Amino acid sequence: MFRIDRKDKKTKARTGILETAHGEVKTPVFLPVATKGTVKTLDFSDLESLGVQGVIVNAFHLWLKGLDSVKNAGGLHDFMRWNGPIFTDSGGFQIIRKDFDFKISREGFVLKSPVDGKKVTYSPEVCMEVHSALGSDVAFVLDDCPPYGSPTERLKESVDRTTDWARRCKAMKCKEQEVYAITQGGIDAELRKRSGQELSEIGFDGYGIGGLSIGEPRDEMISILEISVSSLSEDKPKHMMGVGSPAEVLESIANGVDIFDSAFPTRNARHGTFYTQKGKFDIKKSGFAEVKDPLGSGCECFACKNYSTSYIHHLFKEKEMLAYRLLSIHNLKMVLDLFSRVRMAIRDDTFPVFAEDYLSEFSA
Amino acid sequence: MFRIDRKDKKTKARTGILETAHGEVKTPVFLPVATKGTVKTLDFSDLESLGVQGVIVNAFHLWLKGLDSVKNAGGLHDFMRWNGPIFTDSGGFQIIRKDFDFKISREGFVLKSPVDGKKVTYSPEVCMEVHSALGSDVAFVLDDCPPYGSPTERLKESVDRTTDWARRCKAMKCKEQEVYAITQGGIDAELRKRSGQELSEIGFDGYGIGGLSIGEPRDEMISILEISVSSLSEDKPKHMMGVGSPAEVLESIANGVDIFDSAFPTRNARHGTFYTQKGKFDIKKSGFAEVKDPLGSGCECFACKNYSTSYIHHLFKEKEMLAYRLLSIHNLKMVLDLFSRVRMAIRDDTFPVFAEDYLSEFSA
Repeated sequence: MFRIDRKDKKTKARTGILETAHGEVKTPVFLPVATKGTVKTLDFSDLESLGVQGVIVNAFHLWLKGLDSVKNAGGLHDFMRWNGPIFTDSGGFQIIRKDFDFKISREGFVLKSPVDGKKVTYSPEVCMEVHSALGSDVAFVLDDCPPYGSPTERLKESVDRTTDWARRCKAMKCKEQEVYAITQGGIDAELRKRSGQELSEIGFDGYGIGGLSIGEPRDEMISILEISVSSLSEDKPKHMMGVGSPAEVLESIANGVDIFDSAFPTRNARHGTFYTQKGKFDIKKSGFAEVKDPLGSGCECFACKNYSTSYIHHLFKEKEMLAYRLLSIHNLKMVLDLFSRVRMAIRDDTFPVFAEDYLSEFSA
Repeated sequence: MFRIDRKDKKTKARTGILETAHGEVKTPVFLPVATKGTVKTLDFSDLESLGVQGVIVNAFHLWLKGLDSVKNAGGLHDFMRWNGPIFTDSGGFQIIRKDFDFKISREGFVLKSPVDGKKVTYSPEVCMEVHSALGSDVAFVLDDCPPYGSPTERLKESVDRTTDWARRCKAMKCKEQEVYAITQGGIDAELRKRSGQELSEIGFDGYGIGGLSIGEPRDEMISILEISVSSLSEDKPKHMMGVGSPAEVLESIANGVDIFDSAFPTRNARHGTFYTQKGKFDIKKSGFAEVKDPLGSGCECFACKNYSTSYIHHLFKEKEMLAYRLLSIHNLKMVLDLFSRVRMAIRDDTFPVFAEDYLSEFSA
């Protein structure tokens, strides 16, 4: 259930409440990525301290390794020990992107399991069975997400297939689980429009915008995003898949997106990149060796409240895992703070000015 | 300052209070190893939750990388954000053991720095300057610790040199820092006796027992330990270097040892080994995939209070860092619990029975 509670006057930005079987989520919201059932380097209490509202797990990745343990635990919430909302992505994007040895047909994906080399079929029906076994709050349909630059014929095929698969997924929807469709169509305006309309006609609890931020120029992303959002029911939540950088986030929110997920804050942390309101920095730089200040001035995260930049620089140089954890906590805090400020700005009718100020400081 | 407050009637075990500039330590005590200024995978709040009383850092390893950051922070306590007692080991053991490209002479160790390839000298005087810059509570003198199996001539040389270096270290002792000497002599009873006597005559705040548990048979370790402890002032704390397995710990405590440090609980955790009262186990074993119980029955650690063995098995198989952290927390809790039960048993005059029962259950 999604309820819009405030709309920005100048843009399509809005705040809302998403009700799930595991609690309410205030939108716009950012979901940290917990691909294999854990947000990398963090535990549930870190997520709670950070004020994380929900996480997104990858159904396909867990299915590959076998679901016995999760089933035995009674679902993902008990398995991961995370009682908040869990979204489960279908994995359509990951299968194509990660170069699994796959074939795609009407039936679904047929691929060689990287676990035991056996041929396995991941169909819309299997995907929904996995979501159901995982017991997530929001499940994404299986989609066909061709790489950026695919010819129109391939994009058209992906729209047709994604609509067909979405219909089959909806037929298997289980109680208490919301199902979100995913629009495709690459950067072809007409196909995007058709994809959104077809999925809206079937009718889903929410809509993911897939196949964007996969290499296309930024202005094309924005114009296609606009078309996609307009083609979908206004009163349903929109989820921008795999987007987390401040510029893209703010632009997407201005275009009516409510939900985001991205591995970028935690993946970059593990590579030594950290974010402050002034932009992004490399913790490995020798200049940080003697900085006694925390990573972010005024930041209230566990890393900043307790440790100097100098110490985290030292830990990173020594490849100490604590460095990855502290930087992950900090980067997530930065992103979550951005979202909480966005929600406040929309409520205060200051979103456009806020977004402009934020970006001009961030990219200065 | 060390004060013995209870002696076991049947063994040499005792409880005591070690006063340091950063608080009191109840002995027998176990110090987790924080070689490069962090207990691997853990943060200070993990240590606090575990009830860790103090940690041991390696002066030599930090010195190799340059001390500017630590000096700039005003010492290790502020750098690491750990306000409890810090012991700093000299690194004599590590230099020889880790096959640094070194030469040893009266002056000290001359070695090629693994950081920049330059020739550097690590003398007793440099070592004490490092300890002082680090601002630790207890500093170990530089010792010469030949490998197990070294000829008597080499062991004799190491005893002479260790006494000479200890004297030079004591001359550089700074206020508020306790200095512990380290006995050597391999498994040669006469040399061990002489080493202890010479160091006791110089007089130190405490004594490390070095050069044991480096490959010698267990009964030789015990008999040499007995000789070493007897040769040292009874009222001073004894520190058994690098020992952490329950059997060796209990045997050493029965012989009058007060302080222990070992990387074993955390290093083994990172390799997937965890401990319970019933012994050691390999988390990778497929049998753990569906165990909903925590790692240790009745264990009160963060891992056991919150996560199933099944989930930690999954995390470990996926090489998720959280697995290493949870197993490290659990293994440390097991060791720290052993120590707190030992202290209670000594106070209750039940230590020998406790030790026997513990080991028979552990190795069953």
